[in-house]
Amino acid sequence: MKQVIIDVDTGIDDALALILAINSGKFDIKGITTVCGNIPVELATENTLKVLKLLKRDDIEVYEGCSYPIAREIIFKESVHGENGLAGELKDINIKKKNEKHGVDFIIDEINSHPGEISMIMLAPLTNLAMAFKKAPEIIAKIKELYIMGGVVDGRGNESPVAEFNFYTDPESAYEVLNSGVPIKLIGLDVTRKAPLFESDLDNIVNNSDVTNFVKNITNHYIDRASIGKDVRRCLLHDPLAVAVAMDESIVEMKDYFVDVEYSSRLSDGQSICDFNNRYGKKPNVRVALELDRDKFMKMFLKSIIG
Amino acid sequence: MKQVIIDVDTGIDDALALILAINSGKFDIKGITTVCGNIPVELATENTLKVLKLLKRDDIEVYEGCSYPIAREIIFKESVHGENGLAGELKDINIKKKNEKHGVDFIIDEINSHPGEISMIMLAPLTNLAMAFKKAPEIIAKIKELYIMGGVVDGRGNESPVAEFNFYTDPESAYEVLNSGVPIKLIGLDVTRKAPLFESDLDNIVNNSDVTNFVKNITNHYIDRASIGKDVRRCLLHDPLAVAVAMDESIVEMKDYFVDVEYSSRLSDGQSICDFNNRYGKKPNVRVALELDRDKFMKMFLKSIIG
Amino acid sequence: MKQVIIDVDTGIDDALALILAINSGKFDIKGITTVCGNIPVELATENTLKVLKLLKRDDIEVYEGCSYPIAREIIFKESVHGENGLAGELKDINIKKKNEKHGVDFIIDEINSHPGEISMIMLAPLTNLAMAFKKAPEIIAKIKELYIMGGVVDGRGNESPVAEFNFYTDPESAYEVLNSGVPIKLIGLDVTRKAPLFESDLDNIVNNSDVTNFVKNITNHYIDRASIGKDVRRCLLHDPLAVAVAMDESIVEMKDYFVDVEYSSRLSDGQSICDFNNRYGKKPNVRVALELDRDKFMKMFLKSIIG
Amino acid sequence: MKQVIIDVDTGIDDALALILAINSGKFDIKGITTVCGNIPVELATENTLKVLKLLKRDDIEVYEGCSYPIAREIIFKESVHGENGLAGELKDINIKKKNEKHGVDFIIDEINSHPGEISMIMLAPLTNLAMAFKKAPEIIAKIKELYIMGGVVDGRGNESPVAEFNFYTDPESAYEVLNSGVPIKLIGLDVTRKAPLFESDLDNIVNNSDVTNFVKNITNHYIDRASIGKDVRRCLLHDPLAVAVAMDESIVEMKDYFVDVEYSSRLSDGQSICDFNNRYGKKPNVRVALELDRDKFMKMFLKSIIG
Ligand SMILES: [Ca+2]
Ligand SMILES: [Ca+2]
Ligand SMILES: [Ca+2]
Ligand SMILES: [Ca+2]
Repeated sequence: MKQVIIDVDTGIDDALALILAINSGKFDIKGITTVCGNIPVELATENTLKVLKLLKRDDIEVYEGCSYPIAREIIFKESVHGENGLAGELKDINIKKKNEKHGVDFIIDEINSHPGEISMIMLAPLTNLAMAFKKAPEIIAKIKELYIMGGVVDGRGNESPVAEFNFYTDPESAYEVLNSGVPIKLIGLDVTRKAPLFESDLDNIVNNSDVTNFVKNITNHYIDRASIGKDVRRCLLHDPLAVAVAMDESIVEMKDYFVDVEYSSRLSDGQSICDFNNRYGKKPNVRVALELDRDKFMKMFLKSIIG
Repeated sequence: MKQVIIDVDTGIDDALALILAINSGKFDIKGITTVCGNIPVELATENTLKVLKLLKRDDIEVYEGCSYPIAREIIFKESVHGENGLAGELKDINIKKKNEKHGVDFIIDEINSHPGEISMIMLAPLTNLAMAFKKAPEIIAKIKELYIMGGVVDGRGNESPVAEFNFYTDPESAYEVLNSGVPIKLIGLDVTRKAPLFESDLDNIVNNSDVTNFVKNITNHYIDRASIGKDVRRCLLHDPLAVAVAMDESIVEMKDYFVDVEYSSRLSDGQSICDFNNRYGKKPNVRVALELDRDKFMKMFLKSIIG
Repeated sequence: MKQVIIDVDTGIDDALALILAINSGKFDIKGITTVCGNIPVELATENTLKVLKLLKRDDIEVYEGCSYPIAREIIFKESVHGENGLAGELKDINIKKKNEKHGVDFIIDEINSHPGEISMIMLAPLTNLAMAFKKAPEIIAKIKELYIMGGVVDGRGNESPVAEFNFYTDPESAYEVLNSGVPIKLIGLDVTRKAPLFESDLDNIVNNSDVTNFVKNITNHYIDRASIGKDVRRCLLHDPLAVAVAMDESIVEMKDYFVDVEYSSRLSDGQSICDFNNRYGKKPNVRVALELDRDKFMKMFLKSIIG
Repeated sequence: MKQVIIDVDTGIDDALALILAINSGKFDIKGITTVCGNIPVELATENTLKVLKLLKRDDIEVYEGCSYPIAREIIFKESVHGENGLAGELKDINIKKKNEKHGVDFIIDEINSHPGEISMIMLAPLTNLAMAFKKAPEIIAKIKELYIMGGVVDGRGNESPVAEFNFYTDPESAYEVLNSGVPIKLIGLDVTRKAPLFESDLDNIVNNSDVTNFVKNITNHYIDRASIGKDVRRCLLHDPLAVAVAMDESIVEMKDYFVDVEYSSRLSDGQSICDFNNRYGKKPNVRVALELDRDKFMKMFLKSIIG
């Protein structure tokens, strides 16, 4: 069983990703770390604890990480994730406390304790990991692999014209992590855009439980927000897809490229630049997911919800 | 008849563009300006004079412009345009001299003499025009419109991972021109990639003349170079397409957007960034060609050669 | 006799510099070029023509140059140079017209006509010269030398915390000119700060003429503005000092250094950075004036006014 | 008694600073943190432990901090600090182990445990503190004050033409700390250049002990290296002066200014830019030491050594 740490800024699609990761039974989850991103880190921590409680898995520890990107301010906008980051759901659920250990230290200690064994699933800005690399550079060589939801190598951004949200929010950290030498599988908008969840897909969720109701409610909200000005009612399953790839890499087609991240520009900060033609002459640092078997993914995703 | 100045760095596809522009009979060509780009400006001037001589139109004056981008060095690489920039063709043709007037001054004087009447067809780095704007800002309001071959708003670059050659070579000038307020039609890689000339297309050129032989020879060379590592033998008609749009805008579908150019970054200089979703809240400054009626364009192009 | 072109943005201290240059009888002035700087270029041209008229030397031609820095906007602030740039003086004087030739072209043509013979005295942002270098790179090797009022290598700026006004206004041009290879003598704030004109110095101007009255009036205004918040009433003779060095280099002590100009920073654009300890390992490109024989200079300056 | 944390990259002048801090008896030293700077952090830790052992104060805990600047590589050059960073001294001294806690966490925990009570004396690149601010932003409001050896506001740099070593090595951290809002006293090259230790000053150290011998040996080495190419044999007591100011602020004259740090430029990274004339219109964030009572300082310094 894959030993993993999951890093989140929960968030609707993080919540769906956690359901997939936990209910799949495929992972030995060492702990979950939280970070600022779409919402403040304190709220991300609270939401993560709530989702674990809902899934009856509050035995898993949650470690709160960094409140700010490594070298930037953050401005929390009115979010597609709605009130409380979870479309107003799970307001009254009782949760335990977060673990007292800082997320960055949990990562450092866990990697040091299990050298070469831990896969990390990164579903948020990469601040915690970049901080851990700075504080304890020895862990870089001890991480088995990274599954990163972030970036886009062949198309438009979703936060700036050229940058995806997670990379845009903390480009310095994205740069550090991509240039660290750790084996990386990058699940960017290139494939998450090929993983739409249509409103009609929800019709497959026929049974009625706390979990399915939660999923339907947050997903409906997410679809409402994501479909403004669009013809088709659908949302994108960014974070769940990264989890799914960690479960079964065969659902995507990946190619090896050198990918760099811009962080000091007038217009392009957070852009992930893929050297498709090897103009820079550098060795590939990333396996980039480019194609998706949507059917296989959707089956995995729905099964994790329906049970 | 449209009054035009054509700005070139001739160059195989510039040569094809000049043949289209001249043989179409659609333009009152006020003069041609040259600039450094793929090749040094002196060679661009010489090649332009040779093409005019071949077309028996050396009544058209050629004005040599700038030898360097406005704020950068230029390194001339072994070019896809082959020996002498024209695949070794037209070596022994006799040419007249370039006009003594500098290209930048020709632009300034001509625009000032015909305010509101001149369209400019820009087929090279935008140095001459940016220099003219700096030297004589009053002409900015007097240019009717610009047809610019340059940039790419939705896809990869052809000189860096994110930048097209003309914008990459002189990004400061591209920035100046795009932010000048002059009405711009941008013919970038987005549409020139939809205008491949396949080797088989050349079979349509059945007659045998100095011009058709020249076209076949340079195009074959161009196809050889452009097809390395590719399955299909074809080249892209970047510059001819910009001329064709100036002849008949209905061959492309254009949309209005705000497009900016990066010039101060680690990785993204020369990238043309299109604000599709109006995140910046700025007024459109460019009509961007996004779709192409290839058949219509190919007919125009072949007719100009066959006569 | 030294053959010179003088480049100005007249301005009070430019006016004083022109009086010194002309009345000294030391120069064969080939022409004067104007540029935007403290004031719009049109006003700089007008003021230059007025000063020439006052000096009865309107046989010298004035060539208007660039209206904008090479890659920046310019915002004209309420100036230390007062109303009309000349403290309101010379309002009713009749002037001839500027020469129709553009300042950049005058520089190009004059240098090309007298290769190796022309010294240039640059008393304003370096836009005209950088434009000339871009348009006609061959002149770079034909300029005898440059006397440049600009920059500061060892102390604070006067326009930003780290940058002198002329370099701050057009840092890209300053960079181009300093890295061109032309022999440069740099007269920056390092020495102009050692050339204060005290109010009491004006007592030496005992005679009464149109010229002396003009000088007293503009200088009084200049001292008023320069002395706000200071204990001593004085102004700095930036531009006259550069002219004086061109007349007699022995009034300053100069040292050879590599000096670069920052143009792409958050805080330091226009800063002239002198590599005193040769950390960069580059060959010196500038002779930097560091010490001044103030007495000798003041005698030259006052003599030019009193006659 | 002032409760302090001292942050060092020991280093000769850090060693002298520690001797002053400890022997003065003026501080309740909560702990010492180390960081990469002139030498790798592991060596800085070892050297710090050695100095404490020599001073018979290895009851003070040493916490190792960051191995790299927050967003940069570091290249360790052959150092003015000589072999082992201490001129080859203290090679055979037995030391205890560093504390297991990370330096960044020690800072966070100690500040959180004593809110408003701890002064920090920063004698190295500011990486540890910037990391602590990122990881635990709540401590920013709980630090009493910072004494920072770093920067230069009115003169040349000592690592680049414009930047002091500590700020140059980690400009992003310097920027973060200076803009944090914590009360800062900045002891930069402006005053440390006014604190030369002449070789002859060492003649005052007449007694003979392990400590005095150590001081004489490392200082002689330091003077050797600092005096290359100079007329006078002397070194600068950068770090000791910062400690001395923390002991008695009356030895310097300080003024309040807004000081910013450049970190994204071609030439000026690490420059500390002081807005003397309040051009930016910002509130002062730093008390800058500008003048020094050298005699008073030298007495404090020598007394700490002689005892
Ligand atoms: Ca997320
Ligand atoms: Ca071209
Ligand atoms: Ca001036
Ligand atoms: Ca130190």
